[in-house]
Amino acid sequence: MKSLFLGFLLMACYAPLSADENRGTGDLGIVVERANGSLQVIESSGNTLLGRIEGLGDLSHASAVFSRDERFAYLFGRDGGLTKVDILQRKVVARTIQSGNSIGGAISQDGTLVAVSNYQPGGVRIFNAATLAPVAEIPAEYGGGKPSKVVGLVDAPGNRFVFSLWDAGEIWVAEMNDPAKPVIHKYKGVGMQPYDALITPDGRYYIAGLYGEDGLALLDLWNLDKGPRRILGDYGKGQQKLPVYKMPHLEGWAVAGRQLFIPAVGRHQVLVVDTETWREVGRLDMHGQPVFVMSRPDGRQVWVNFAFPDNDTIQVIDTQSRKLIKTLQPGKGVLHMEFEPRGEEVWVSVRDIDRLQVYDTDSFERVAEWPAMKPSGIFLTSRAHRIGL
Amino acid sequence: MKSLFLGFLLMACYAPLSADENRGTGDLGIVVERANGSLQVIESSGNTLLGRIEGLGDLSHASAVFSRDERFAYLFGRDGGLTKVDILQRKVVARTIQSGNSIGGAISQDGTLVAVSNYQPGGVRIFNAATLAPVAEIPAEYGGGKPSKVVGLVDAPGNRFVFSLWDAGEIWVAEMNDPAKPVIHKYKGVGMQPYDALITPDGRYYIAGLYGEDGLALLDLWNLDKGPRRILGDYGKGQQKLPVYKMPHLEGWAVAGRQLFIPAVGRHQVLVVDTETWREVGRLDMHGQPVFVMSRPDGRQVWVNFAFPDNDTIQVIDTQSRKLIKTLQPGKGVLHMEFEPRGEEVWVSVRDIDRLQVYDTDSFERVAEWPAMKPSGIFLTSRAHRIGL
Repeated sequence: MKSLFLGFLLMACYAPLSADENRGTGDLGIVVERANGSLQVIESSGNTLLGRIEGLGDLSHASAVFSRDERFAYLFGRDGGLTKVDILQRKVVARTIQSGNSIGGAISQDGTLVAVSNYQPGGVRIFNAATLAPVAEIPAEYGGGKPSKVVGLVDAPGNRFVFSLWDAGEIWVAEMNDPAKPVIHKYKGVGMQPYDALITPDGRYYIAGLYGEDGLALLDLWNLDKGPRRILGDYGKGQQKLPVYKMPHLEGWAVAGRQLFIPAVGRHQVLVVDTETWREVGRLDMHGQPVFVMSRPDGRQVWVNFAFPDNDTIQVIDTQSRKLIKTLQPGKGVLHMEFEPRGEEVWVSVRDIDRLQVYDTDSFERVAEWPAMKPSGIFLTSRAHRIGL
Repeated sequence: MKSLFLGFLLMACYAPLSADENRGTGDLGIVVERANGSLQVIESSGNTLLGRIEGLGDLSHASAVFSRDERFAYLFGRDGGLTKVDILQRKVVARTIQSGNSIGGAISQDGTLVAVSNYQPGGVRIFNAATLAPVAEIPAEYGGGKPSKVVGLVDAPGNRFVFSLWDAGEIWVAEMNDPAKPVIHKYKGVGMQPYDALITPDGRYYIAGLYGEDGLALLDLWNLDKGPRRILGDYGKGQQKLPVYKMPHLEGWAVAGRQLFIPAVGRHQVLVVDTETWREVGRLDMHGQPVFVMSRPDGRQVWVNFAFPDNDTIQVIDTQSRKLIKTLQPGKGVLHMEFEPRGEEVWVSVRDIDRLQVYDTDSFERVAEWPAMKPSGIFLTSRAHRIGL
């Protein structure tokens, strides 16, 4: 086990590796430093900072996906910037401002295509993953040519992209076998204002959250002919119209066995859903309004962070007993958590105190910590091997 | 999609990359060439052979695990050899003959320890993953000091190793938090002659096959106090004592949702087991006696190869309909299959015709093929990120 002692020793140390060193890339990762438009490149074997990549523009709400060789990251910036960075050599290799305002992206199953979903002008743009050359454009028009904002874009098995149309209330599935000519399947009337979505880790179920009404839209990608259906009809802001400080992220929803742990909207609760019946089977009271609800890779623990003003805290649920087993206080502004692929440690970005922290998930001890400039999203290269990430 | 044309173009081509090139390691893999005591180093983005590593001794039944940075592989040879190879630079970096006869190994969750299970002299030996220096020895003695052969060694969450004692009929769990002083939990009377084992992908259930009697021994690692129990009492060679050409491998058992697909012993069938009740819920008639029954990472397909004389064939099951959807004939001596991490392609070693083949799992087309010297086990570096592999 990596010791706490080692962790302290490594605090704030800038690693001595040269950027062109020959090394494996399976234990690398990037951390978005929002204040600076930069990325920290880190490694999770010794928990050290290897260096920075700078000049990436507006990185608020930025997210990333990885090439299948775990060497390159594709950054999706809120300013419409799509940037390909070489993590190994720590430099930008290609960058394009592909729209006025974008909200995330995905990489195809075979790693050859990168897709970006756009607010402004709407639609999805597809790029060659090697060069970032444009390959195709999906306008996402509805109701006689009106453009829709696109959200909740994910990759799915069969070299498909799946996404939701905020303005149209639709879910679209794009088959990319002929990349220049995507085959689109459109599902209308899924609900008002889908605002985000997730795909289950096996790539089978696509679930969109609805901002404009309660409930969730579920599409079974193994049975597209059945179309979308509504699940968890009470899920959402509800009739009481509670103040919602932050709509919870859907991307990190935790699957443990057949249980799905999801953040309640506006309530200090995590809900437990049975993924066979898609019904709620329990709820747990929590410290605040949950934002990310993420399962350790073995499914035994679920880690939860919270919206302001409770965002200095993380709570850990034991999925077998469905009980709260730990409350941690990393500091103000816990924005994101990322598990190492076999789950022994978890990385935490704490924005307001400008710290990056690593915790042992068995002992809950902090094993490493160092400065970061307003850190937000943390992305480890192991995501390259997982469906929907 | 990687085209068939590209596949043919790449047939038998020896890649031009130099061994010290800076590159990612997430799409690399090794293929055991038994005849030659060598490994092919391959990459799965373009499906090419990058080079060979030679001088690895007796590689019959050899298996491998990977360092968490996906740069190094640890090879477990039947001759007791433990070899650490640098896949990136394609060379042996450390090698030790650690016993007279070994049967596989594992790497700890945190990547710091490598464990090897031995037939001769029995027991488990633990090595430092960086240097291969000995760290600890677990003798596996029973009945007043008799040594037992050890089989079915896997890693489990919580930095544990789990293994079975063939002679003793026991399952042991070793906690490695203080590596020099493993804490051992022993479970006796699990059944006669456990011969191999698997751990479910979430790292929760350890299941040992029994050679000396029917049924399987199941240990729930989340509830060790409950001890092992017997499941599938009819599973095994049965009262008819059918000729068994090859005991099926347990390692590759396929989990799809809550269904487990397992090879029948001695029968031309694959059994379907419900992982909540641990009861058989169906069986499918197959082309021969199944050896490996492996699920595509998304769980939608299960691929099966067979024992002699039917080992020229692969069959594919659709897990939703539980129907056979494809029969392929790669050639005589199909020994192993390995899925790419997001499941778009599968690698197949065909020993008797000295070929390595890659298939698209959607179209079932062969997309690449080249010569290999009696290829057997195929191991992609993405295993580094998975529990129990």
